[in-house]
Amino acid sequence: MTTNDPPPTHFGVLLFPGFQALDVFGPLDALNILSNTNPTHTLSILSSTLSPVSTKTHLPGASSSFHQSIVPTHTFSSPPDSLEVLLIPGGHGTRSPLLEEIQFVKDIYPKLRYLITVCTGSLLLAKTGVLDGKKATTNKFSFTRIASEQPQVNWVPHARWVVDGNIWTSSGVAAGVDCTLAFIEHVYGEEVGKRIAETMEFTRHTDRDKDPFAELYNL
Amino acid sequence: MTTNDPPPTHFGVLLFPGFQALDVFGPLDALNILSNTNPTHTLSILSSTLSPVSTKTHLPGASSSFHQSIVPTHTFSSPPDSLEVLLIPGGHGTRSPLLEEIQFVKDIYPKLRYLITVCTGSLLLAKTGVLDGKKATTNKFSFTRIASEQPQVNWVPHARWVVDGNIWTSSGVAAGVDCTLAFIEHVYGEEVGKRIAETMEFTRHTDRDKDPFAELYNL
Repeated sequence: MTTNDPPPTHFGVLLFPGFQALDVFGPLDALNILSNTNPTHTLSILSSTLSPVSTKTHLPGASSSFHQSIVPTHTFSSPPDSLEVLLIPGGHGTRSPLLEEIQFVKDIYPKLRYLITVCTGSLLLAKTGVLDGKKATTNKFSFTRIASEQPQVNWVPHARWVVDGNIWTSSGVAAGVDCTLAFIEHVYGEEVGKRIAETMEFTRHTDRDKDPFAELYNL
Repeated sequence: MTTNDPPPTHFGVLLFPGFQALDVFGPLDALNILSNTNPTHTLSILSSTLSPVSTKTHLPGASSSFHQSIVPTHTFSSPPDSLEVLLIPGGHGTRSPLLEEIQFVKDIYPKLRYLITVCTGSLLLAKTGVLDGKKATTNKFSFTRIASEQPQVNWVPHARWVVDGNIWTSSGVAAGVDCTLAFIEHVYGEEVGKRIAETMEFTRHTDRDKDPFAELYNL
């Protein structure tokens, strides 16, 4: 985008079974607050069907009754026309994404203005080929495994978030809020991001290269 | 609870139209991670009906299409038998809670082991009478208005969170994560809370009396 383009108004989030709740709702709540004063903003929640999508994983041993379900607004086969920003969360579901999730991201990426991933959302994105040869980061506990599985990406170990072109990838879970606030500042202005962080009473990381969790996990 | 009681396993969250998304999903995602290794944990999502509950407010001017909807598991009139911990989020919906929300909290509180509020969730709780004469905190941008509206509560301005008996009240939005992690440490042990914060890559406030947002809003 050039500085003359209007800021984006149509956001989407990709949901799959076993998404990590805060990966979705940290960034979305920053955008909720942004949108309180921008009534033209819309959010599309995309999944394979219109049935509610659960945080419950399908991995062996996931037997608890502790999960939440979100209602999609669109299917991958009938996405909205004008999606400008797509958010891809992480979570256990990224270990075995469906072919239709991969295909949807491949098809929609060329039409997007921005793509943001949180946590292992960048693993899902790596599996689409969109990150080939690009710089990105991901969850720090899983970093070594993911970097070894997807060597065609230039994985950055010490980064709260990474920007390469129009792709913003964040480190694990809560880092998605820092990444989204930085994205909001980039697109809507520094004062807007600062105000939203204050409204959320969120103590931010504002330096993308400072990553205490990379150190914690000896990266 | 005495130190001999087993830690709680049955959690609930109260949802109403116009809840703040991160107030719910910050605390719940800490509990999601806790519950990954505690398969006996259950979560009940309580609302007036079983229809999905939206973050959309019913206040004048809330015309945007930027919102998310969560699926309840129980209604206020048919709650689960064994609820031990109830989470009450904040959001615009707390300004005009329904009578049935107020009545549900009044009825369930004597049966609970713990009650946690996030942000203006403490305003809703104050309206039930449960906070009368107790110490509590709330959202710092709205603190002065809420303290003036509900003078029967001993509102604490400088606090990331406050504990009075079995009631834990947090400051605005992201403070709910700090409060919930401190609650987890209190109930399940310090190492458990520390591990969850690290998994979430969340830079915590661990001192309940240190509150940068109270200073920001000149409290």
